[in-house]
Amino acid sequence: MATIATSVADTCAAAKRAARALAQLDTAVKDGALHAIAEALLARSDEVLAANELDMQAGRDAHIGDALLDRLRLDESRLAAIAAAVRQVAALADPVGEVIDGHRLLNGLDVRKVRVPLGVVAVVYEARPNVTIDAAALCLKSGNAIVLRGSSTAAHSNAVLAQIASQAAVGAGLPEGAVSLVAGGGREELAELATQRDSVDLIIPRGGEGLKDALQAVATVPVIYAASGNCHVYVDASADIEQARAIVINAKTQRPGVCNAAETLLVHERIAAAFLPTMLDALADAGVTVRADERTRALAASLWQDDSSRAAAGNDATTAGAAGRRAPHQMIEDATERDWATEYLAPILAVAVVDCVEDVIEHIARYGSGHSEAIVTRDTAAARAFQLGVDAACVYVNASTRFTDGGEFGMGAEIGNSTQKLHARGPIGLRELCTFKYLIEGDGHVRA
Amino acid sequence: MATIATSVADTCAAAKRAARALAQLDTAVKDGALHAIAEALLARSDEVLAANELDMQAGRDAHIGDALLDRLRLDESRLAAIAAAVRQVAALADPVGEVIDGHRLLNGLDVRKVRVPLGVVAVVYEARPNVTIDAAALCLKSGNAIVLRGSSTAAHSNAVLAQIASQAAVGAGLPEGAVSLVAGGGREELAELATQRDSVDLIIPRGGEGLKDALQAVATVPVIYAASGNCHVYVDASADIEQARAIVINAKTQRPGVCNAAETLLVHERIAAAFLPTMLDALADAGVTVRADERTRALAASLWQDDSSRAAAGNDATTAGAAGRRAPHQMIEDATERDWATEYLAPILAVAVVDCVEDVIEHIARYGSGHSEAIVTRDTAAARAFQLGVDAACVYVNASTRFTDGGEFGMGAEIGNSTQKLHARGPIGLRELCTFKYLIEGDGHVRA
Repeated sequence: MATIATSVADTCAAAKRAARALAQLDTAVKDGALHAIAEALLARSDEVLAANELDMQAGRDAHIGDALLDRLRLDESRLAAIAAAVRQVAALADPVGEVIDGHRLLNGLDVRKVRVPLGVVAVVYEARPNVTIDAAALCLKSGNAIVLRGSSTAAHSNAVLAQIASQAAVGAGLPEGAVSLVAGGGREELAELATQRDSVDLIIPRGGEGLKDALQAVATVPVIYAASGNCHVYVDASADIEQARAIVINAKTQRPGVCNAAETLLVHERIAAAFLPTMLDALADAGVTVRADERTRALAASLWQDDSSRAAAGNDATTAGAAGRRAPHQMIEDATERDWATEYLAPILAVAVVDCVEDVIEHIARYGSGHSEAIVTRDTAAARAFQLGVDAACVYVNASTRFTDGGEFGMGAEIGNSTQKLHARGPIGLRELCTFKYLIEGDGHVRA
Repeated sequence: MATIATSVADTCAAAKRAARALAQLDTAVKDGALHAIAEALLARSDEVLAANELDMQAGRDAHIGDALLDRLRLDESRLAAIAAAVRQVAALADPVGEVIDGHRLLNGLDVRKVRVPLGVVAVVYEARPNVTIDAAALCLKSGNAIVLRGSSTAAHSNAVLAQIASQAAVGAGLPEGAVSLVAGGGREELAELATQRDSVDLIIPRGGEGLKDALQAVATVPVIYAASGNCHVYVDASADIEQARAIVINAKTQRPGVCNAAETLLVHERIAAAFLPTMLDALADAGVTVRADERTRALAASLWQDDSSRAAAGNDATTAGAAGRRAPHQMIEDATERDWATEYLAPILAVAVVDCVEDVIEHIARYGSGHSEAIVTRDTAAARAFQLGVDAACVYVNASTRFTDGGEFGMGAEIGNSTQKLHARGPIGLRELCTFKYLIEGDGHVRA
């Protein structure tokens, strides 16, 4: 059994041996293994679901809550989706062997910079058992061995999934040790895994801040931390108002719990009076609570007074008129300093009125997490200033921050999003799971 | 004065502010600043040499040794070389703004992956004061602010050099704080510098293992460690013997004290008898001590017996005959396990006879440091197996390992060589001092 080994160090050492063979495999062999894994998942779904039911029962007994139970739960349709995702990874271009750069030197030496696998990638993750397969597929396709360390909550599910992946992979010609699971979900195992400098080339945590903090305290192996995203949408003086509203609603509400959702809206003072009324209304309609700075609140208050007078005069009921609906200003809370720095991951939006694009760049430099930032504008100078001045993985002009995603970017599946500046920034896909080497060819060349 | 600040944290914060302006400067402004620095170095050479003499005197008083004194010493011609190197960096292509990748997504969004500066790069270095200017030139050209932390041995020289660079840069339109020097060469300053996560984007140490260890113990900022190189030359069964000898001599002796020099020679058993006699002789001629495995020693002993018999018979004096020269076998010591793992940086070479290229790949995987590895062969299958199987920054076919160098690779000057797999592998030049960001342009695009 390749998936359960006696110690973390042994598991990693076996993965290292596997990695050397994996690095040299043809794409067809790797793709064959991925298809074999997809088939095995469906063929052995009974085993997976039985194991998953054990985890679910334990979860219910431990009262882990509905949200966690839902993340934990597998069924036939979720398994089919996981298998389909594996086949999609198989269909992606193989990053290994890509010539990134190459030229002939003055002395005739030919130099090629060629993409190669990192070696052994460890993925540390929390409840979702689908990560077991998703991460394995990405690592194998990119020629890496993978060492998985899931949470104890999903121990039964993960063990069966990793076993299926490992057996199917080996059956399709991949080396033993290509996929393995570290038994034991404790902090000791995490610390041991995070210090295997001789065998593990990279650790990617997929989980909450607690997991990241735990890793940061012990890791000597390189880590790419999946990002938190405190993302901004800036509506410039020259913005198309309809477009701006649609982008803000999409960035905030299309999926509020993810890292590329917007958390702060910044509005140029020259467009605020024209833009904010319908914007705040739309946010209220969408159930978003606004935490606003003083300028925004003052504007909202004056709008409310207008509405009240108009409603009193009986000649306008469109804004405040819907029976039982709270007027926008009632959903507006005072923003504190802390709000500008908060990744809500919830239907809450911080809103401020600003004087110029330079102030926006300054605000984002101070509070942003370097994930995804958007400007809505018709002004080329503002767009250029924003793109040059904002230091983030993804800088958008007239588009929602929600597009920051390997799939959306055409990179295929991703294993996370990086807000680090070294190695991988933005979506971490197949290429980011690789390093490169220089291949140099001569004919007896020596250095003078 | 921008070069001396009150605290490390203040210096780094000022550098961070400077970095935001630097990132947006046109190439012409940065190049102008580099030329201004080169001119100022020559114009103010008296100041530099006077400061350097203070360091030299202190070094002589402290008996730091001739080698260190030579590294510390500046004179008119060395200053001219430093200034010329700055102008060469100015002449290199600007990496900032390079479009690395780009395409239009299915939904019409245009995505470009564009190279941008890292931000603030800290360079920690030992005695050589020229690093002050070399590193500053590379960082400024790549749009980064630089924080320098030199050794106390070169404190006077570094202070004047950093001041000249900073003043010339600011005079040419670069922001205050673009070049700064951390005052104080103690471990406390190093630790403070290495933990400025909010302002320092990368630390590059240029120095010995002690410096690296000190950093590793405290750094929370990303570090790229300059490499140690335990490099191998493998002479395959099919090698051209003359070519192999020239490559081994070049890789070992052209500059033995550097990281891309060869430390181990591996020889295929089928070519050993034909190749080793002249090779060992040439190594002896070059003053290289050989530490050999048993098979190599057995071969050398049999050769020596042949020589002795021939010399005794009076019909051959070419090998052992030169008066007073030691016969090659006398320069051969027994290799121990430790030799295979040692980066000698000296005229010593470990030598072993091997059975096949697979054994070579195995040996290099076990003992190599992932720097530069070479095969000498006429066999395409052996060359391909070696290039695929050896996991190192630079893998050579029929060329000396000594070519691993930013200048040789056409990347221009380098700030070091990386044997890490993440971000930078091999020479660390201007591009490696950059990260990238995705710029995405749409027309009101929202995610469905």
